Amino acid sequence: MKMYFQEINKISYEGAESNNPLAFKYYDAERMVAGKKMKEHLRFALSYWHTLTGNGTDPFGQPTMERGYNELKGMALSRARVDAAFEFMTKLGIEYFCFHDLDIAPEGDSLQEKLENLDVIVALIKEKMKETGIKCLWGTTNAFGHPRFMHGAATSPNADVFAFAAAQVKKAMEITLSLGGENYVFWGGREGYETLLNTDIALENDNLARFLGMARDYAKKIGFKGQLLIEPKPKEPTKHQYDFDTMTVLGFLRKYNLSQDFKLNIEANHATLAGHTFQHELALARVNGMLGSIDANQGDMLLGWDTDQFPTNIYDATLCMYEVLKNGGIAPGGLNFDAKVRRGSFKPDDLFISYIVGMDTFAKGLLVADRLLTDGVLEDFVAGRYSSYMVGIGKKIVEGTTDLEELAEYALKHDTIELQSGRQEMLEDIVNRYIYGKCE
Amino acid sequence: MKMYFQEINKISYEGAESNNPLAFKYYDAERMVAGKKMKEHLRFALSYWHTLTGNGTDPFGQPTMERGYNELKGMALSRARVDAAFEFMTKLGIEYFCFHDLDIAPEGDSLQEKLENLDVIVALIKEKMKETGIKCLWGTTNAFGHPRFMHGAATSPNADVFAFAAAQVKKAMEITLSLGGENYVFWGGREGYETLLNTDIALENDNLARFLGMARDYAKKIGFKGQLLIEPKPKEPTKHQYDFDTMTVLGFLRKYNLSQDFKLNIEANHATLAGHTFQHELALARVNGMLGSIDANQGDMLLGWDTDQFPTNIYDATLCMYEVLKNGGIAPGGLNFDAKVRRGSFKPDDLFISYIVGMDTFAKGLLVADRLLTDGVLEDFVAGRYSSYMVGIGKKIVEGTTDLEELAEYALKHDTIELQSGRQEMLEDIVNRYIYGKCE
Amino acid sequence: MKMYFQEINKISYEGAESNNPLAFKYYDAERMVAGKKMKEHLRFALSYWHTLTGNGTDPFGQPTMERGYNELKGMALSRARVDAAFEFMTKLGIEYFCFHDLDIAPEGDSLQEKLENLDVIVALIKEKMKETGIKCLWGTTNAFGHPRFMHGAATSPNADVFAFAAAQVKKAMEITLSLGGENYVFWGGREGYETLLNTDIALENDNLARFLGMARDYAKKIGFKGQLLIEPKPKEPTKHQYDFDTMTVLGFLRKYNLSQDFKLNIEANHATLAGHTFQHELALARVNGMLGSIDANQGDMLLGWDTDQFPTNIYDATLCMYEVLKNGGIAPGGLNFDAKVRRGSFKPDDLFISYIVGMDTFAKGLLVADRLLTDGVLEDFVAGRYSSYMVGIGKKIVEGTTDLEELAEYALKHDTIELQSGRQEMLEDIVNRYIYGKCE
Amino acid sequence: MKMYFQEINKISYEGAESNNPLAFKYYDAERMVAGKKMKEHLRFALSYWHTLTGNGTDPFGQPTMERGYNELKGMALSRARVDAAFEFMTKLGIEYFCFHDLDIAPEGDSLQEKLENLDVIVALIKEKMKETGIKCLWGTTNAFGHPRFMHGAATSPNADVFAFAAAQVKKAMEITLSLGGENYVFWGGREGYETLLNTDIALENDNLARFLGMARDYAKKIGFKGQLLIEPKPKEPTKHQYDFDTMTVLGFLRKYNLSQDFKLNIEANHATLAGHTFQHELALARVNGMLGSIDANQGDMLLGWDTDQFPTNIYDATLCMYEVLKNGGIAPGGLNFDAKVRRGSFKPDDLFISYIVGMDTFAKGLLVADRLLTDGVLEDFVAGRYSSYMVGIGKKIVEGTTDLEELAEYALKHDTIELQSGRQEMLEDIVNRYIYGKCE
Repeated sequence: MKMYFQEINKISYEGAESNNPLAFKYYDAERMVAGKKMKEHLRFALSYWHTLTGNGTDPFGQPTMERGYNELKGMALSRARVDAAFEFMTKLGIEYFCFHDLDIAPEGDSLQEKLENLDVIVALIKEKMKETGIKCLWGTTNAFGHPRFMHGAATSPNADVFAFAAAQVKKAMEITLSLGGENYVFWGGREGYETLLNTDIALENDNLARFLGMARDYAKKIGFKGQLLIEPKPKEPTKHQYDFDTMTVLGFLRKYNLSQDFKLNIEANHATLAGHTFQHELALARVNGMLGSIDANQGDMLLGWDTDQFPTNIYDATLCMYEVLKNGGIAPGGLNFDAKVRRGSFKPDDLFISYIVGMDTFAKGLLVADRLLTDGVLEDFVAGRYSSYMVGIGKKIVEGTTDLEELAEYALKHDTIELQSGRQEMLEDIVNRYIYGKCE
Repeated sequence: MKMYFQEINKISYEGAESNNPLAFKYYDAERMVAGKKMKEHLRFALSYWHTLTGNGTDPFGQPTMERGYNELKGMALSRARVDAAFEFMTKLGIEYFCFHDLDIAPEGDSLQEKLENLDVIVALIKEKMKETGIKCLWGTTNAFGHPRFMHGAATSPNADVFAFAAAQVKKAMEITLSLGGENYVFWGGREGYETLLNTDIALENDNLARFLGMARDYAKKIGFKGQLLIEPKPKEPTKHQYDFDTMTVLGFLRKYNLSQDFKLNIEANHATLAGHTFQHELALARVNGMLGSIDANQGDMLLGWDTDQFPTNIYDATLCMYEVLKNGGIAPGGLNFDAKVRRGSFKPDDLFISYIVGMDTFAKGLLVADRLLTDGVLEDFVAGRYSSYMVGIGKKIVEGTTDLEELAEYALKHDTIELQSGRQEMLEDIVNRYIYGKCE
Repeated sequence: MKMYFQEINKISYEGAESNNPLAFKYYDAERMVAGKKMKEHLRFALSYWHTLTGNGTDPFGQPTMERGYNELKGMALSRARVDAAFEFMTKLGIEYFCFHDLDIAPEGDSLQEKLENLDVIVALIKEKMKETGIKCLWGTTNAFGHPRFMHGAATSPNADVFAFAAAQVKKAMEITLSLGGENYVFWGGREGYETLLNTDIALENDNLARFLGMARDYAKKIGFKGQLLIEPKPKEPTKHQYDFDTMTVLGFLRKYNLSQDFKLNIEANHATLAGHTFQHELALARVNGMLGSIDANQGDMLLGWDTDQFPTNIYDATLCMYEVLKNGGIAPGGLNFDAKVRRGSFKPDDLFISYIVGMDTFAKGLLVADRLLTDGVLEDFVAGRYSSYMVGIGKKIVEGTTDLEELAEYALKHDTIELQSGRQEMLEDIVNRYIYGKCE
Repeated sequence: MKMYFQEINKISYEGAESNNPLAFKYYDAERMVAGKKMKEHLRFALSYWHTLTGNGTDPFGQPTMERGYNELKGMALSRARVDAAFEFMTKLGIEYFCFHDLDIAPEGDSLQEKLENLDVIVALIKEKMKETGIKCLWGTTNAFGHPRFMHGAATSPNADVFAFAAAQVKKAMEITLSLGGENYVFWGGREGYETLLNTDIALENDNLARFLGMARDYAKKIGFKGQLLIEPKPKEPTKHQYDFDTMTVLGFLRKYNLSQDFKLNIEANHATLAGHTFQHELALARVNGMLGSIDANQGDMLLGWDTDQFPTNIYDATLCMYEVLKNGGIAPGGLNFDAKVRRGSFKPDDLFISYIVGMDTFAKGLLVADRLLTDGVLEDFVAGRYSSYMVGIGKKIVEGTTDLEELAEYALKHDTIELQSGRQEMLEDIVNRYIYGKCE
């Protein structure tokens, strides 16, 4: 078998003092944290699209990435990428991968050929999985790249396109099931609009719900037990994506009675494009019982498009893992690096370094979050802050045993109210100090 | 009775050729459009807060507005403002007003005194309403200005604050009812958070739902038949407002089984702060059967705060009225000018000019929208675009009589799909030409 | 000669009442406005890149555009595009074109081959120009698409890349000269940075200035008499582009004593990405004597990337032409449609419709702007507003014959100041009414 | 003398392990770093406006701050604030303060009274300075709050307003001189525009330059030796502020030959509002030799207004101090906390905690930056990256001894170029690891 990263050895944990860019400083897969192994908390996954098929193009430039399979085409290229993917994961100790159908096999000249291409590569991937023990976190379909999807897939104004997308989802679900995938993801590619002047948003939203309903039915029928996940994104490629953010998707799912069947796959960079912090989206998903999985990347807060950078911001990683721990873990979801190396980080070792940096950032974040929770420094403050709802009139409010009249009467007698400080600055400093090292 | 705008006469309609800044060029209240009078379509309302109590302060500057009642204080000031408000509305031919409790009467030293102050002024307003025939579009309470609400009202961490807010809503509802108000509005002042580090968002959202539920119950109990409206806003004053946008509010209402009892009051500038167009928010509310009323203003697309400018953008006004006409009208809601004169437009006649400009913009927008709909230039294009859902496989999709397997089989046979152009540029041009004058 | 738009006839002016999407409603090339022909005011130019080489790809999708030369490759494709370009311009009555070297001829395997490819196509273009009378508005080089430019061209950390870019500019200038181009444009492709952590901004800025200085010297040497233009853009593709906006470029040029040799090419969508209005950038360039040419397109104010839409916003077009008229015209620059049809407007006639829409929008904008200026409705207001600088202490300020001490003494005697209203709302309404039709 | 923070003792350094919110964990004033005391590097200054006169109002709410002098008015209030300010600084060990004239003394009914009020308080402040050894970092005037400045000060359309502002600057400079202030700051309050429709930007910019020129002349005349500083801000309060960002100001200063006389005061939150990082603005000022002083705060990257939060982001603090160290220090400027406690952090001890948090963040940032520089981990990478400009063709480029022709010839022979990776992810990780603790 051809090696694509021959010059890179298996990456090992060397500890915080190491200066080796090709070693972990914080991610120690077997280290126990809060009763579980680090790797069980983090459940890192490779993103097949950015990692294997990403080539460094951008709207203003050609491919830049130096990859060993650059000269190949068609099925030969797809085969080579399978080898490269498993070599890469094995060397990094990553135990999961995620993929779109189109990432792993070429389009083909007909739908039939497309499906056949997939079968060939899926068989190959299965072998590799058996060989390495690596698992499939989730699969999905690419129903946005081909010109037929220019106006949407499930929300296309053309019913034949809807049908084509349905065929793709059917196949992608079957593949995901056959690979033992623990989740199936719906990212709304071009499910949105470019201008309201040409759009019937009522029909498009209804059709999207119909599509998801049929997909759920089919998942049940074939015995797929994994989570079905919707991934919110506010814009790009379309001007407005229907799955704008967590709350939008929750409203949509509730309207169409789909909220029992779907959870959310939250992406950091999609959160910020929607005007929210990463933690905001995670927290809202969590408290609504809908946190399914995570796309761990980061955006540039001064840029208005999805930059999908490898996550290096320790604040975001810490607060993400804080939400994950409060959620009781992320399984059967995981942390997928939906991240691409910068276009100028075009060497093969940049790919390793970037994954290492991302994994270390989240490992450190996990340590900080665990220590914050263990020490209760934030939780205790919050509990005290809301304690008035545990007794008296507050308790009646929470229990639903009062009404406007009783409250008004109460207020007339208690109209001088002593408030507590919100202490934002003090709390931000606490997080800082745990990051600086109080957690080791 | 003292006159506050003595130098201004009743504003009349002079037609498009007039250059008189103190005349209407498009708003002709009694003109029939699409079977109704212009004024019935538009149902313009004065915003008591910006118009009467707005003084031109901003975070960097002191009051600038020249108003005849500037020297007054307390109840005398409140009385003067009632006179000024009704003089202003009468001169402009505006038939509705909207208000917060705190706009019309001073706070007082105790809750009791606050309530008594309100009673005095409400009696005065009632007289004026009888005298002039002017009506109340909606009332609300200000539960965000006083320091007690610094951490929220229904979402305050302090139960006594929740009770105080409840007392305010109770009173404001009673007042609105007694004034014949056709709607009651909930704008989530500080119902949101500054930092997640000190916030229990699960409890806060639950409490917000409890609060709204109690308010609805009380409305029913006292026989208030008007619409209860929630007004989305994404941020400001808090970093994150829970009523972020239309879809967020719909999701919230559905979660807590409140969606039968509340509709939405959509504000133009809040839409853009949330990353949406004004039309987007209106359209989503409309197709979900939740369009209740409108705050007609505009923001500056390059500024990140609520500028509440008088609406002069004809595109937004046209597309707003397009949605209103498709909604079958906005009643019992209306178009409230939640707009303030620029800080440098500090003269009394600027207030008139700004309302005239806003009313003319929407009157022109109504004319354009009506003509677009009458001619069917957009609707016919859209109908044709989605026609594949009227027959064959499309019809089955819409009727819910197909599934992934049938669709996949269909797709295998129909994998060469002919698409139509979306024609965005052509449609934008059509709107332009109707604005330029095809509608008169 | 092959025709690429056989089904489209020459586009003619049919007047405002026409509903023919393939006719001009406002652009009447020979119509006299303010003493010049419309076409002399507007000097429309075709953008070779979007119009001929744009294929509808975006970061999430494959090409969509239906073009008659889609099957061709290499030099054959380049030749076909020349035919298509001149057919297109002739049919639209567009008299200028703009191009990058890479738009017209393929890259080649070596720099030598690249240069030879260019010579072949340039000869072909010259013939076409002679045949049709169409002229070259400006030329430029693409020093951002090839991987060698991943870290910049003139600001590359690699001196060989700097040299390569120099070779390209040399050739592109020679070509532009030989085609009689009236301007040469520098758009700073990747002249910027992705992260300050790896960037020497002092050296990069110095090198950029050195590069521009050498280019100016070479232009002089070969006898190029046209304008040298820098096109500001704040971000994209790099995180930060050095030519951020008009004021940034002016500061840069002044620092390196280049401000006598360069003017600006202002792009609408770049203005808004920098947080400015289109008019703002035009006005600042104008009052600094630096307005050279215009890229006429529009962005989506809610999206954070360069959407390069065909301009349909009449406000922007009007205020642009207002600045152009105040500038005494835009020649030897022009209005280049740096705009691409939406990805879903993929039919050949969409290309015509979109140009027509853009040309009509600017033609209407010209008519409105001319009438505003002729009537002096804005200018007179502004003149009156600043009249205090024509006399007394104001005159001394402007003439530089006073100082802080005299002013302070004056102020002590004149500390009660009467201000005038800024009348923003009234002025916005005036613009509206001129747009609605006061100008025909 | 009345104590305003009686319950708070002098704040001392307790080290990183302390959990005492009223102690420093990193800021150890006398600790030597890179050859200087920490306090000499950081030169922290109190912001009189936020700290003493800030009361917690926002556009939607009333004052919230609990302060011991809340009941006072007029000169009594101003005197009390002097006591409070010096008590506060003494307890925190802050050795500098900054102020606007209006922060320290009330407006008065006439300009004369205003000047007299200032004299009284300035005398009081001088005593306190003598008593405590605390120094004045900079003074300025508030020429934006009073209604007379609604349309600008130096850029007002009214010459009398220009004169009034001149009188204020004259006095504020005299006061700053008499207090031994080391800098005088110009923040362009309302020097900008709300709409171009009513604005003569050419005259306004010329007048701004005239104003600054006169101020410089007067500074020289009275013997003020400190730095004159301009503080860029892009928007707020006006839609567009003329001092948009560093590069805009540099361009302006160069145009009017003022660049020898002024430097820049960079504010973190103003940088982000302009679409830049804090480090970007600092770096550009530094490499242009214009870095004068710093307003150390932070904004919320998801909010579009100036939130002026206390700085807690360690990335920004580190990269700020990195620029300061590379600048050879910030003296005679300093780090002014132009920051306000959150509106909900309304207790007196929140004020201390917030300053402590800010000071600790920058102290930690200094330590990290010093270690990064000492180890050369970033600098060495950058030096290597640009090394091609030290030899051969690169050297000729930098020395200005080549031209386009030679470069083109060179390029023809060197058209296969080997590039290095930009290594962004690796470098971001290095910064992280220095933050986590490699520096102690």
